[in-house]
Amino acid sequence: MTNHRIALIPGDGIGAEVLPPARQVLDVLGRRHGFGLTYTSYDWSCERYLRDGAMMPEDGLDLLRDEDAILLGAVGYPGVPDHVSLWGLLIPIRRAFRQYVNLRPVRVFEGVESPVRGARPGAVDFVVVRENVEGEYSEVGGRLNRGFPDEMAVQEAVFTRAGVTRVLDHAFELAARRGGRLTSATKSNGIVHTMPFWDELVAERAARFPRVDWEQEHIDALAAKFVLAPESFDVVVASNLFGDILSDLAAAVAGSIGIAPAANLNPERDFPSMFEPVHGSAPDIAGKGIANPLGAIWSAALMLDHLGHPEAAKEVTDAIAALLAKTEVRTRDLGGTATTAEFTEKLIELL
Amino acid sequence: MTNHRIALIPGDGIGAEVLPPARQVLDVLGRRHGFGLTYTSYDWSCERYLRDGAMMPEDGLDLLRDEDAILLGAVGYPGVPDHVSLWGLLIPIRRAFRQYVNLRPVRVFEGVESPVRGARPGAVDFVVVRENVEGEYSEVGGRLNRGFPDEMAVQEAVFTRAGVTRVLDHAFELAARRGGRLTSATKSNGIVHTMPFWDELVAERAARFPRVDWEQEHIDALAAKFVLAPESFDVVVASNLFGDILSDLAAAVAGSIGIAPAANLNPERDFPSMFEPVHGSAPDIAGKGIANPLGAIWSAALMLDHLGHPEAAKEVTDAIAALLAKTEVRTRDLGGTATTAEFTEKLIELL
Ligand SMILES: CC(C)[C@H](C(=O)O)[C@@H](O)C(=O)O
Ligand SMILES: CC(C)[C@H](C(=O)O)[C@@H](O)C(=O)O
Repeated sequence: MTNHRIALIPGDGIGAEVLPPARQVLDVLGRRHGFGLTYTSYDWSCERYLRDGAMMPEDGLDLLRDEDAILLGAVGYPGVPDHVSLWGLLIPIRRAFRQYVNLRPVRVFEGVESPVRGARPGAVDFVVVRENVEGEYSEVGGRLNRGFPDEMAVQEAVFTRAGVTRVLDHAFELAARRGGRLTSATKSNGIVHTMPFWDELVAERAARFPRVDWEQEHIDALAAKFVLAPESFDVVVASNLFGDILSDLAAAVAGSIGIAPAANLNPERDFPSMFEPVHGSAPDIAGKGIANPLGAIWSAALMLDHLGHPEAAKEVTDAIAALLAKTEVRTRDLGGTATTAEFTEKLIELL
Repeated sequence: MTNHRIALIPGDGIGAEVLPPARQVLDVLGRRHGFGLTYTSYDWSCERYLRDGAMMPEDGLDLLRDEDAILLGAVGYPGVPDHVSLWGLLIPIRRAFRQYVNLRPVRVFEGVESPVRGARPGAVDFVVVRENVEGEYSEVGGRLNRGFPDEMAVQEAVFTRAGVTRVLDHAFELAARRGGRLTSATKSNGIVHTMPFWDELVAERAARFPRVDWEQEHIDALAAKFVLAPESFDVVVASNLFGDILSDLAAAVAGSIGIAPAANLNPERDFPSMFEPVHGSAPDIAGKGIANPLGAIWSAALMLDHLGHPEAAKEVTDAIAALLAKTEVRTRDLGGTATTAEFTEKLIELL
């Protein structure tokens, strides 16, 4: 029997409440499809930071290196600056394991009302492919003349041919397998060094995918189009920062950030990939048992797909679709009163 | 009689179709309120670039220097790369005249249906204050190893204490005069050098405006909130890039990018300020006489306000509100069939 070693990092806030449901779902599918899953839990979090001065131990990345995949809950805690918590855990994992593709599927499910009128259930179904390890999220930069009137901060965005090309190829291949359409987010009219480079590389890679229809849109107009014509997208490819903005916006358009999943992929499989819901640690509802587990569960489905179980993954997304279309059970973010446990139980019934 | 010297730069595409309506409106108000307006037109555009190799003459900025204000239509033309057209005209004007505040009011008018369900007419009314001369839109950067596998592009975002402080103060003052609430866009969890600096300066300036309630939101979550809770904003302050994205998104939420206005302000009045609709040159509808003139007209109203005629400015926005609430006349972007001329005529009737 194939066995997959999964690292569980619940992290902070509702992270600890959404991972157990994901694990329940995974175990059902393992039994059904004949694969095993063994879990190791890591208590890396802001709480650990406040106790020990570090989000994870010094050999943290080495511990993860032999896992087959990582399932992460959420990171962030009031009082711990985000740039400390994120750059102490989430971002180093993305980078050390060259998870250069951040994949964020967006669907408006039947039974979920989008806040956007033009987003009909069933008709919005696209994927944001975000560059995940370079670009605007850069450690290069710093501060001059701290505290003086001439103080300044600089931050260098770095785009490499290799780094951009590999994520573009991933996006074009995905578009070729899906609806054959790709939209590239740019801002070459304002960000005049890196974005024209990005555009050139898009045009260059596009030549290798003659059957993919592609276009580019400036990020400002594209954000507007997510609201005006959300049904018009198939694959959207974007830099680290633009992908971050677009995928959160898309999750809102899809009706709940609580549903949206993310995969941080190392396509070459040299290192483990990481799967995490798009939502954060949500300190306001943490500890109440009312968080929406679907973001984590859908992320677990992306993990199954990556581990070589696409049928099992599809059973999960089908069950999510059925749960939303055919039942009235809903967590609070979706307008209902169900607890995390009740919502999960209903989903498992439908699996 | 006070006389104001206005530079008109129609630019490209529909730019030439929306400035004459704005001028008609300005002239009505000048007569009514007893001030004069003299206009100088400048044919600076992509057409000029294709003919003469430059968007504007070498002494272009000097020509504008003595004007009291600049009214710009739109810039951009298929075949001329955006970074050429924009950095040859729009951006140099913003920078040379230290128009460091880009002000973008957002309203959902009665009679306009927002694409966002939660944006009730009358209930959405906020202003995006965008830093307009530094930040991510920087000339600092370039390309290494062009054409080789190790090619890379870098772009340096530069934030100065003076540059950030002055736009924050403008935003806080505006919030103090309006609803007393300010939201600062950040991304200090990802952009770890410049954005924590921005956040520090926000906290520092906030201390001088104890009656303004302020908060900060990460740009990804904030973009989502523009869709989920557009009624919750009063003043939103953002960096050059984030303000660009948020204001286009907000214009879409408001029901038509054709209505949205912008003011590029030099608050010290050392140099002329520039007023321009948020929409672009729209080559697809250019020359048909169907463009929505309200973005340009509302921009002209912002200009009147800046020139010391707040009552006249208010008459314009009141007439726009009445046009949309009380008549069925609409340009195509608003679901109607009226031409630019018909829409303008009706507005002037209501003035
Ligand atoms: C055209 C472009 C350079 C410009 C900008 O990004 O500043 C425009 O989008 C705007 O918002 O005025
Ligand atoms: C928390 C933050 C650093 C992170 C990001 O911007 O990458 C998050 O917003 C995400 O999208 O995964």
